[in-house]
Amino acid sequence: MKTVKKIINEPQNVVPEMVDGLVRAYPQYLKKIPETEAMVRSDKKSMEGKVGIVSGGGSGHEPSHAGFIGKGMLSAAVAGQVFTSPTPDQIYAAIKASDQGKGVFLVIKNYSGDVMNFDMAKDMAELDDIKIKSIIVNDDIAVEDSLYTQGRRGVAGTVLMHKLVGAAADQGASLDELEKLAKDALPHISTIAVALSAATVPEVGKPGFVLADDEIEYGVGIHSEPGYRREKIKTSKKLVSELLAKIDQELHLNPQHQYAVLVNGMGATPLMEQYVFSHDLLDQLEAKQIKPVFMKVGNYMTSIEMAGISLTVFDLADNKWLKYLNYPVETIAW
Amino acid sequence: MKTVKKIINEPQNVVPEMVDGLVRAYPQYLKKIPETEAMVRSDKKSMEGKVGIVSGGGSGHEPSHAGFIGKGMLSAAVAGQVFTSPTPDQIYAAIKASDQGKGVFLVIKNYSGDVMNFDMAKDMAELDDIKIKSIIVNDDIAVEDSLYTQGRRGVAGTVLMHKLVGAAADQGASLDELEKLAKDALPHISTIAVALSAATVPEVGKPGFVLADDEIEYGVGIHSEPGYRREKIKTSKKLVSELLAKIDQELHLNPQHQYAVLVNGMGATPLMEQYVFSHDLLDQLEAKQIKPVFMKVGNYMTSIEMAGISLTVFDLADNKWLKYLNYPVETIAW
Repeated sequence: MKTVKKIINEPQNVVPEMVDGLVRAYPQYLKKIPETEAMVRSDKKSMEGKVGIVSGGGSGHEPSHAGFIGKGMLSAAVAGQVFTSPTPDQIYAAIKASDQGKGVFLVIKNYSGDVMNFDMAKDMAELDDIKIKSIIVNDDIAVEDSLYTQGRRGVAGTVLMHKLVGAAADQGASLDELEKLAKDALPHISTIAVALSAATVPEVGKPGFVLADDEIEYGVGIHSEPGYRREKIKTSKKLVSELLAKIDQELHLNPQHQYAVLVNGMGATPLMEQYVFSHDLLDQLEAKQIKPVFMKVGNYMTSIEMAGISLTVFDLADNKWLKYLNYPVETIAW
Repeated sequence: MKTVKKIINEPQNVVPEMVDGLVRAYPQYLKKIPETEAMVRSDKKSMEGKVGIVSGGGSGHEPSHAGFIGKGMLSAAVAGQVFTSPTPDQIYAAIKASDQGKGVFLVIKNYSGDVMNFDMAKDMAELDDIKIKSIIVNDDIAVEDSLYTQGRRGVAGTVLMHKLVGAAADQGASLDELEKLAKDALPHISTIAVALSAATVPEVGKPGFVLADDEIEYGVGIHSEPGYRREKIKTSKKLVSELLAKIDQELHLNPQHQYAVLVNGMGATPLMEQYVFSHDLLDQLEAKQIKPVFMKVGNYMTSIEMAGISLTVFDLADNKWLKYLNYPVETIAW
């Protein structure tokens, strides 16, 4: 077998070694739940009397999700094998470690494996008398139904969902209030991506798809799921036009509304390109008389070393949402 | 000319467009100094009565340096063309915008162009009666003299230097005290890198060097400067052994000392690999009975989309230094 050019040891040990490195590098934020690849907030005091927030999914999306564990955001996160849903028992362990008697809210990305396994963990927790509610995030507007998804996929907008429910939970929101918040906000969050090259899962050893040297693909998912069109590489301005037009079709951008924007690097795309893309995005939004009131640019929901960018726009229809986005947190990666 | 596969417009416009995207995305931290590619802290009040801290250099190292502008860290930063020193007039503009009557301290990476241009800017500022002192950071222990450097290169350790002098300045340190702090700390900061692939400067359109599919190079600089050895890709454990041995030769690691560690991704290397590397690093330090008291893992001083990692170890010989590293800041990227 050809050597994979990655800084790893045995490909099958990537996840446990990664989790170990992460929790030992950042003991002030994270601790590992014994015999799992789940991590919980070290600052247990900050969770007292509050609804727990649990997320997770397959690994390969770092800093998601463990990078968002901390006061004001997630209580715990579960790391599955690369691009593979975590098992129900590990999700259950994260739920149990997060419950403070007020219940636990789950943020699940819409992939069949995640939906099934989080659902089983929810059943296990309910047998234990832990109250559970959840949201299935499906912010990717690129395609309907996909390789691992019924409906739309959950991608970078999930990080904004973590931020919303995390801030509300920290301020004492109940499980019912968190569910309402998440359900109300979800349809206002839309994401779409463009890929320049694919990720290589360590155990697979070759890229999930191959694009020619001058080719890009619009609408690719975070596990190399197909998008909606391949074509020759375009200027940043034209990429922004394409992605923003799709977002506009979905959200009907309106100069009277307030918007939050997340420009997300997929892993190998340098900040240089993300900032150039942001420049073009802000110009094109300005032409629509829109100036985002909240913006972040960086690697938040990656696909290992995929090159590309996703654009998330969040229509802040309720002005509490902006306060939640700005609410202070103590995490590694927000 | 072959299209460069990057999310950009005209290659010659990358820097101004990037700077524009950055300052418009983060107006709460940064503003652009008119007619320059230099950026200064938006929170002018936080600079009052304090020594200004200015850094910068060629672009391509994002989030360095503008990502470290903010209360408790840099006052201003200058972005040169990609991998090219900023001009003296732009550095001077950053100095002028940062001076609050207490003088300005410059953090310069050791490249001939930067040293010369910052020095000219210093002369210009002194003619204006602005007091200036500076440190030339040369933390890269890989090689002596290099493509653009006499002596040793300045790399990721520069970010730790920003943190130290930024924290001290925020607490009211004088220009002389900052100079002493920087000079005292510098010999205790050592960095060394390994590269898996090179960066492509947009205007050049091809990588700075080419490694075979199974080849790595130790000691590469952040502008594709040659390192000290090429060989076949190794496991993360073996890469850590190599880099840590070089650091040990330099710093003489001692279980009685306290250490800070920065594991720095060079641009295209995913956090997954950085965390695996951290796992091996922490194991090998533990075998030497060393447990870092401060650690960060992520992309801090990049080389556009170079794949690779650098390891910085900082011997905290003075216990104030740890306090400075932990001092709260308000920046985009720390």
